[in-house]
Amino acid sequence: MLTRLALFPTVQVFLAVALGLVLAAFAMPAFISFLTNRRIGQQIRVDGPQRHLIKEGTPTMGGVVILAVMTFVFVLMVYIVSPSAQNASLTVLKNHDYMVRGALLVIGTALACGLLGYIDDRAKVIRERSLGLRARAKIIGQILIAVVFSMLAVNWVGITPDLQLPATTIHIPLNMLTSTVPLAGDTLLYIPWPYIVFASFMLIGMSNAVNLTDGLDGLAAGTVTIVTLVFGAIAFAQDNLSVAIVAAAISGACIGFLWYNAHPAEIFMGDTGSLGLGGAIAALAAVTKTELLLLIIGGIFVIEALSVVIQVAWFKRFKTRVFKMAPIHHHFEMMGWSETKVMVRFWIITALLAGLGFAIYFFQQGGLGI
Amino acid sequence: MLTRLALFPTVQVFLAVALGLVLAAFAMPAFISFLTNRRIGQQIRVDGPQRHLIKEGTPTMGGVVILAVMTFVFVLMVYIVSPSAQNASLTVLKNHDYMVRGALLVIGTALACGLLGYIDDRAKVIRERSLGLRARAKIIGQILIAVVFSMLAVNWVGITPDLQLPATTIHIPLNMLTSTVPLAGDTLLYIPWPYIVFASFMLIGMSNAVNLTDGLDGLAAGTVTIVTLVFGAIAFAQDNLSVAIVAAAISGACIGFLWYNAHPAEIFMGDTGSLGLGGAIAALAAVTKTELLLLIIGGIFVIEALSVVIQVAWFKRFKTRVFKMAPIHHHFEMMGWSETKVMVRFWIITALLAGLGFAIYFFQQGGLGI
Repeated sequence: MLTRLALFPTVQVFLAVALGLVLAAFAMPAFISFLTNRRIGQQIRVDGPQRHLIKEGTPTMGGVVILAVMTFVFVLMVYIVSPSAQNASLTVLKNHDYMVRGALLVIGTALACGLLGYIDDRAKVIRERSLGLRARAKIIGQILIAVVFSMLAVNWVGITPDLQLPATTIHIPLNMLTSTVPLAGDTLLYIPWPYIVFASFMLIGMSNAVNLTDGLDGLAAGTVTIVTLVFGAIAFAQDNLSVAIVAAAISGACIGFLWYNAHPAEIFMGDTGSLGLGGAIAALAAVTKTELLLLIIGGIFVIEALSVVIQVAWFKRFKTRVFKMAPIHHHFEMMGWSETKVMVRFWIITALLAGLGFAIYFFQQGGLGI
Repeated sequence: MLTRLALFPTVQVFLAVALGLVLAAFAMPAFISFLTNRRIGQQIRVDGPQRHLIKEGTPTMGGVVILAVMTFVFVLMVYIVSPSAQNASLTVLKNHDYMVRGALLVIGTALACGLLGYIDDRAKVIRERSLGLRARAKIIGQILIAVVFSMLAVNWVGITPDLQLPATTIHIPLNMLTSTVPLAGDTLLYIPWPYIVFASFMLIGMSNAVNLTDGLDGLAAGTVTIVTLVFGAIAFAQDNLSVAIVAAAISGACIGFLWYNAHPAEIFMGDTGSLGLGGAIAALAAVTKTELLLLIIGGIFVIEALSVVIQVAWFKRFKTRVFKMAPIHHHFEMMGWSETKVMVRFWIITALLAGLGFAIYFFQQGGLGI
């Protein structure tokens, strides 16, 4: 029976992607009309590439729909479908509470970061300037969110039920290079309180990195889709169905958004979307204990952020520029690549890096085993 | 050790994608220069959308590189890396000969269909007209290839070692709708000699369908990438490493090609590519015994082909058009969607359909179990 079919774990994850996609794709036109009627459009940064000035006035804050769809799909699947599956004895969800806490942490972090982005977006729209919130207010907000996030990851989501490892354990997937035994397991590094600093830094860094990546039609939405899909696969391999469903829902919602965000974009995700999705990705890395693999899986965001850091640092020191323009996607635009070409090529790099990260994880997973 | 690492099955499949991508991406610029120097460019069909006329003269036959890379990666992985892995006792390849025959059938079919496409492409370049080979010569060539392909699938690749089912068995994945037991297995339909007709029709249909899909920058390359990735995953789930490697290599080579084929395209795949890749996809469905699922996994090609059939049949009968232009991607272009938007949206539909097909397969696989 079809209703019974919907209860199986693999089907639940597929449904989460499909539902996220369909809901976001169907909600978006209404949201675009709403914004257009209220003349809520993007201010384009005056120091960006010239040809981006025609994007002035494109509706923004599409991230609101992505985050709303993510939350809705999560509640539907985890609080309605999953319990039915358990009642029907089709799934035995070991460690159910631990899983749901992990999923709630991802949702909560995404919504908190998204809210900060929303305040920023609103400030831009009202004052009609591109820069939004003052930098200092933004970073203070991010630090607050990050510290709460890290404390919750350690003390609320807490100890992994299977391995009984505290959340302050860092998994270093390097045994594969030295061991002759497959599935040799990670090297574990216990860092009690410094983990709070480490995880806070990860969240702030990733949230801002996705924000920087969001400068070309389809770029952030496509890369986030790929990265969250891989985290969904990792969570699923860990039998963590709740977290896999959240990752799948985000991925689906991003694809639905992408339908309208492909060049020429009819809507942007805004800081609401990019800060929120960056936060979600950092939280996914924390609850799947793949904080170091995040540097590879989300490597595209690392590259984008580094390009800005390098550009600024180099300019301060030597008064010359390393890139024609930072973040690095603008550099390639200035080199004459079309917007579509930059998008497709950055997607390809993202897929390669995310695939590499997943391959490393998959190879080591017998040892991780949570 | 890194060399030892390369021998594990998951790593082999990932390597096949990465190697295919890198080789195709690095070979392509040299191939583009070669074609440009010899002034070998695409003739654009005069009855296509107006704005496609500027594509006149873009180098074509990029499929040559895709098919060459596919063959090279296959030989490298299956004849050099895989035997080393077996010698090192890292993999136990059950049914090795059966697997390699399946992989060789995919390679052979792709090369045969690609050769037909190459003859067609050459005819176009030499006579400088868009239509190439005469339709009748082309279809006779396809029928010959299809019959040989079907005979080899039945009599050479032959009986599945685990289930001892002849290749003339069609797997109908519908038990999931009626059974209350998960992994209930397919309904099996034995069709002795009609399988030859069925498989020939599948090959000719899919080869031409991918050919029709290849009318927009990035459209065929991206959709083939997604579809072959899914067949790679299915073959891997069947422990059929050789076939998984071929599918992965095709996928990787298509991504490498896509790097240059994104809008505005610097090279087209030509009939060499589209007929060859369509043949490869049909062969992948045959050797993984997922002929019916192909209609869902490769649904985008089915839709493209059907749009042409419907348009022509309707016009013959009622003298009016169903679509503004067929194949259907041109219809959406005429509706004002940008080329990038059509590409991204068709990729999204392909990913959804391919994901759905894989979910159905995954759900039933305990029963298929070859």
